[in-house]
Amino acid sequence: MNMRMSDLIVKKRNGGTLTGEEIGFMVEGYTNGRIPDYQMSAMMMAIYFQGMNEEETLSLTMAMRDSGEVLNLKAIDGIKVDKHSTGGVGDKTSLALAPMAAACGIPVAKMSGRGLGHTGGTIDKLESFSGFSTSIPAQKFIENVNRIGISIMGQTADLAPADKKLYALRDVTATVDNMSLIASSIMSKKLAAGADAIVLDVKTGSGAFMKEEEDSFALAREMVKIGNGAGKKCVAVVSDMDQPLGFAVGNALEVKEAIETLQGRGPADFLELCLTLGTQMLLLGKKAETEEEARKKLLAVIEDGSALRKLAEFVEAQGGDSAAVYDTSLLPKASLTKEIKADRDGFVGHIECEEVGICSLLLGGGRETKESSIDLSVGIMLQKKVGDSVLSGDTLAILYANDGKKLEAAAERLLRAYRITDEEPERRSLIKGVVS
Amino acid sequence: MNMRMSDLIVKKRNGGTLTGEEIGFMVEGYTNGRIPDYQMSAMMMAIYFQGMNEEETLSLTMAMRDSGEVLNLKAIDGIKVDKHSTGGVGDKTSLALAPMAAACGIPVAKMSGRGLGHTGGTIDKLESFSGFSTSIPAQKFIENVNRIGISIMGQTADLAPADKKLYALRDVTATVDNMSLIASSIMSKKLAAGADAIVLDVKTGSGAFMKEEEDSFALAREMVKIGNGAGKKCVAVVSDMDQPLGFAVGNALEVKEAIETLQGRGPADFLELCLTLGTQMLLLGKKAETEEEARKKLLAVIEDGSALRKLAEFVEAQGGDSAAVYDTSLLPKASLTKEIKADRDGFVGHIECEEVGICSLLLGGGRETKESSIDLSVGIMLQKKVGDSVLSGDTLAILYANDGKKLEAAAERLLRAYRITDEEPERRSLIKGVVS
Repeated sequence: MNMRMSDLIVKKRNGGTLTGEEIGFMVEGYTNGRIPDYQMSAMMMAIYFQGMNEEETLSLTMAMRDSGEVLNLKAIDGIKVDKHSTGGVGDKTSLALAPMAAACGIPVAKMSGRGLGHTGGTIDKLESFSGFSTSIPAQKFIENVNRIGISIMGQTADLAPADKKLYALRDVTATVDNMSLIASSIMSKKLAAGADAIVLDVKTGSGAFMKEEEDSFALAREMVKIGNGAGKKCVAVVSDMDQPLGFAVGNALEVKEAIETLQGRGPADFLELCLTLGTQMLLLGKKAETEEEARKKLLAVIEDGSALRKLAEFVEAQGGDSAAVYDTSLLPKASLTKEIKADRDGFVGHIECEEVGICSLLLGGGRETKESSIDLSVGIMLQKKVGDSVLSGDTLAILYANDGKKLEAAAERLLRAYRITDEEPERRSLIKGVVS
Repeated sequence: MNMRMSDLIVKKRNGGTLTGEEIGFMVEGYTNGRIPDYQMSAMMMAIYFQGMNEEETLSLTMAMRDSGEVLNLKAIDGIKVDKHSTGGVGDKTSLALAPMAAACGIPVAKMSGRGLGHTGGTIDKLESFSGFSTSIPAQKFIENVNRIGISIMGQTADLAPADKKLYALRDVTATVDNMSLIASSIMSKKLAAGADAIVLDVKTGSGAFMKEEEDSFALAREMVKIGNGAGKKCVAVVSDMDQPLGFAVGNALEVKEAIETLQGRGPADFLELCLTLGTQMLLLGKKAETEEEARKKLLAVIEDGSALRKLAEFVEAQGGDSAAVYDTSLLPKASLTKEIKADRDGFVGHIECEEVGICSLLLGGGRETKESSIDLSVGIMLQKKVGDSVLSGDTLAILYANDGKKLEAAAERLLRAYRITDEEPERRSLIKGVVS
């Protein structure tokens, strides 16, 4: 093969279409260091302007998937259905949905990451159970899924290393914002994680990576196309992230809310999202034939307590203390609280969603850099959400902290994130649509 | 100053205009290594797509000029007028024009480069005079200009180092082809070389960097604007490079042709170009008030032998043996020759100009890489040029070589560079226009 990266950049710059072979050459060369950063960043910028077609996007995804280990989950019986969220504030969906799906018979073999920036990671949240660990060998991961139907493993470094390297480069060269590149980055990791089918939760709104509904649907379509192109059944749900999901934001607080949801007393929006995503999982995993049937089964495992028990089994199997599943007062607790209050009558017109995430981060609940340690106990419990009527003096939210200064700063900022209006705002629907 | 390169890339990517301060930050940071190649190449690609306005282009040029030494030629009396060619095949213009201008009283204080690729460099050509050197101290350079009116110095590494670094990056990231970037690259070096006024020879056609006349004029306008913006008088001549200039291609062969031109028996096209460029030099240098007067003066210094004597003085002053100026048989000579002949009657319809340059390179007359050594004696003497009528068997060109194998290969290739047609081709004008 006698290709030159500079020729490929010219081709893309001039609006040409890269072949699968060319994209493979590029990704492999970049991963092993033969192609330097400066050529790749020029290529990314050319792609930013000229785009990639469906075939190119699929080729890029496959090449990145194949740049490292591709998990083989054949040793796990049944149709493995993975769920992935593009990330949001208060998004504790996996914590409730994984046990629900497992209780319905879907084998849940999940790779998860830690949080960075204003959205938290599932692994961090799970560590609220004392002793819980996701650093388990692959063999145990597979055994656990076969035995109790669920296991979650930390993302190994060798999953799609090309994506990792490329994303870091794009991050500092203004080449993140391209639909094909975003979609192939997410999907390369998902495909490497080895599931048979994938349900995607694409967030939209002020707290999501994609602020506009149109863009979120475009990303959803792009990812579903890639998944199908790679031979996997794939469905995407576009859901609202213009305000935090549920009421809890912060690791242990979210765990508590997820447990309450499995106990049948969770927030309506959060339950609805779990049911919608769970329905798609059950359909893809052939545990239900209609949406109605799927929904019924998912509600049943909450009602009969089997989903909650599944969570306890899962926590136990990965070294955690499951007592907290039945007594949430055992979860990490912050020492300080502070309420923020409405200073006028009206309606909650808007909550600057990303700001709520940042407040949780400021309290110590998130990582600013990869090396930061996090405080699992801190966070925010919203008391009022968009559309709620409020009277002056009503509590809007309660902050939990272990540091008085951080608490004051976060409280001030959180108050500014709320907008109280005279008129009742239009309600945004939670589920914007399903793309398959 | 709290700027971040990634923000500047976003700004340009989104079609924004960079301020002079931002461009200065970028060029300085890149030159001293604080800004990495991969961000600069992404920026260059963003500029490729979004362009730069006049002000940005000027800022970039000035920042690159100021990235290293800026020559101070104040110690030289009179208006120093520099001449720069964008490069072509058989372009020996400086060899004849510099002595002509000097003989007319224009102080010629010139920085020149070596050749790379299919176009030769002035310094290489001058080294055909045994002993000649351009590695002279700045002090001697200035003394020579004041004493005999002419000196040529090799380009020092510290002239516009930002341009050098940036051009090398653009070369491998498909970001060369942008008018503003090309213009600022050329002009940053010219402005650093310290002349008071600049005459640009912008080539156009198959043997030039710019193949299309429209592009050549655009480049000419862009460079003149930069020159004026930097406070220098600047004129650009757009001239034809669709076939080699004159008949000679190759170092010593071109020196011989330049000498013959100074003796009043050079090729018409080459003489015409020297007169056109020389006229602009004399006007800018205030040695003539009208084009007519300038032309007369330039012809006079050929006729009275003073331009030829100026060449001899100049060669002598830089350690060269000037005997060859009066007896060109003393110049380096190749041991082998071969004629290529027309295989049919007709007209020379086209000469693939770049191919002629490549043939000279193949014979050993040019450098493929910076490290190549070159054979000054080899090259090509065209016998027929575009528009000439030919009979089958007529000699089209003579090749000069010191290696039989190279000679055969080059001869075969050169023959293919000629296209013989039945119809007489339209003549292309040599001078396309003057931009000021």
